[in-house]
Amino acid sequence: MRDRLLAAEKIKAIDWRDGALFLLDQRVLPKVQTWLRYDSAAAVAEAIRTMVVRGAPAIGIAAGYGVALAARERLAAGGQWRAGVAADIALLAAARPTAVNLFWALNRMRERLERLADDAGVIAALDAEAQLIHESDREANLTMAQLGVDLIRKRQGHPQVLLTHCNAGALATGGFGTALGVIRGAWLEGLVEQVYADETRPWLQGSRLTAWELAEDGIPVTVNADSAAAHIMRTKGVTWVIVGADRIAANGDVANKIGTYGLAVNAMHHDVRFMVVAPSSTLDMSLENGEDIVLEARDGAELVGEGAPVAAFNPVFDVTPADLIDVIVTEKGVVERPNAAKMSALMCRKRLH
Amino acid sequence: MRDRLLAAEKIKAIDWRDGALFLLDQRVLPKVQTWLRYDSAAAVAEAIRTMVVRGAPAIGIAAGYGVALAARERLAAGGQWRAGVAADIALLAAARPTAVNLFWALNRMRERLERLADDAGVIAALDAEAQLIHESDREANLTMAQLGVDLIRKRQGHPQVLLTHCNAGALATGGFGTALGVIRGAWLEGLVEQVYADETRPWLQGSRLTAWELAEDGIPVTVNADSAAAHIMRTKGVTWVIVGADRIAANGDVANKIGTYGLAVNAMHHDVRFMVVAPSSTLDMSLENGEDIVLEARDGAELVGEGAPVAAFNPVFDVTPADLIDVIVTEKGVVERPNAAKMSALMCRKRLH
Repeated sequence: MRDRLLAAEKIKAIDWRDGALFLLDQRVLPKVQTWLRYDSAAAVAEAIRTMVVRGAPAIGIAAGYGVALAARERLAAGGQWRAGVAADIALLAAARPTAVNLFWALNRMRERLERLADDAGVIAALDAEAQLIHESDREANLTMAQLGVDLIRKRQGHPQVLLTHCNAGALATGGFGTALGVIRGAWLEGLVEQVYADETRPWLQGSRLTAWELAEDGIPVTVNADSAAAHIMRTKGVTWVIVGADRIAANGDVANKIGTYGLAVNAMHHDVRFMVVAPSSTLDMSLENGEDIVLEARDGAELVGEGAPVAAFNPVFDVTPADLIDVIVTEKGVVERPNAAKMSALMCRKRLH
Repeated sequence: MRDRLLAAEKIKAIDWRDGALFLLDQRVLPKVQTWLRYDSAAAVAEAIRTMVVRGAPAIGIAAGYGVALAARERLAAGGQWRAGVAADIALLAAARPTAVNLFWALNRMRERLERLADDAGVIAALDAEAQLIHESDREANLTMAQLGVDLIRKRQGHPQVLLTHCNAGALATGGFGTALGVIRGAWLEGLVEQVYADETRPWLQGSRLTAWELAEDGIPVTVNADSAAAHIMRTKGVTWVIVGADRIAANGDVANKIGTYGLAVNAMHHDVRFMVVAPSSTLDMSLENGEDIVLEARDGAELVGEGAPVAAFNPVFDVTPADLIDVIVTEKGVVERPNAAKMSALMCRKRLH
């Protein structure tokens, strides 16, 4: 299955070439496919803030390359270059608050830098570390796809009707996606009849990004208003809701795109299974539960337009409590009916090998 | 309270003047306030189809005037004018399928016409009947507002946080609204702290129409993405969801704007009370339950734009089962925890006086 999954990798959104970062501008997809070039940490932070790049794993990857760019700039400038890199890392960390992959990747880059005593080799080592973060995420996608497909296959023989929210695909990761990786794998295995993609207001990640990705792969996908999801669950035989995550607390509570929580409530009401797919870099074992996750609220103008004469509240993430989730799929394994003990057991596995 | 409610009537969307119908074009509100003039039934049918006028009671009122216009046209043309009016009524009936107020108003106009043996007086009688439909709807709004406010007041002393979906206000009715009538009344009584208005994709009745109406009245209103409603219920102390209806079956199942059903599921999950406010012209006692209601699906282009390279499913109504509804408010009275027996008892009241 791995080879067939690899062959399904078509779209990429992050590229690292000749010491510069290239990002496919997700603000204008799918109408225009524009690659933007970045050669400074400050510009990468701005790209994260303005959502040129979005999706928790992709933000982490971009931030990793941002630190590699910071080292280049600061070394060239000379002087207290390590303090300069630390300032750039702080700038990158302030770009967006909710996706923990951003902080995870920055910590990893910082730790790598701290192990480098000599200036010589810093650039090569940080480049390599950022590329390793990128490549590991791609591998994690492949593993998660296989684990997720096994869960769907367990259910029954006939092809499934799936519903997803936001975009947790190639555009959000270093590979072919978390939630969409599972959906792509399930499609390759003949397990998909139809995918419904919530349009995902206000940024339309569903109708612009997810629908485009799946249609490019020939997977039958239909866009619907977010508010139609309950009606679709009731009338269209949906068996699974499959989504990504931006941060998962130690008890299995999941922060993800606004609307995920209401979907999970509706999934429970309709006896539809609810799967969260995210690499372990999305887990934040320092937070006891989802109440402690900082949820970003963006400018109301993203919702009602610039200069609209009306107040708007635009939270872009919400928290789905673990008890509404059937299964969390990570590259380390699968946690059914998540709770603190099971999540802890999952994360301890890495220490054992 | 009635006088204060009447004083709160500011916005109107339907006017009948000099034998012509004037509609405030709801497709371009609130940026542009344009009144369009109609002097034929066919044009009124087109206005209903294209949503120049929308909202179940308003559609019924416009259709009533459409029949008055049909009589003018057909009498002027001479010949088998009654057959012509019947054809116009059929055209009006085909404009939109879900709101039963359309068919209710057309039946009422047809029955009035059938009682008129002489051609003389037909125009005046039909004009009067259409105006009576219009005026009765306005009165129904006033009565429902008082009944709904009493329900909110029963709950407790402190001001409430309310959430509404779509637009069931002055723009949707002949008065100051059904759901928004109750909200306006509650505001006048000091019972409203904050109103959250779902933006209501794809047509944005919430952010364009409801937010505008409430802001004009100085009522604190904040627009949110439809998918944020569950998060808002969980974090903002919402006590009531208040919505209108397009058709109510004999058992109390309610067809309303897409998203109402998912909201009701979430309201139940969060212990938020769920109120449906609709005049008795919205009740369809001929349908045993909501499964029999024809739910309109409109062009996917309304969701994803013209020429988008992706399939879209755009159902614009859904059905909320009676067992998710705390109370249905009509001008005939209030039905708590609706079921077939209680709905039947409500509708029989009119036969007793």
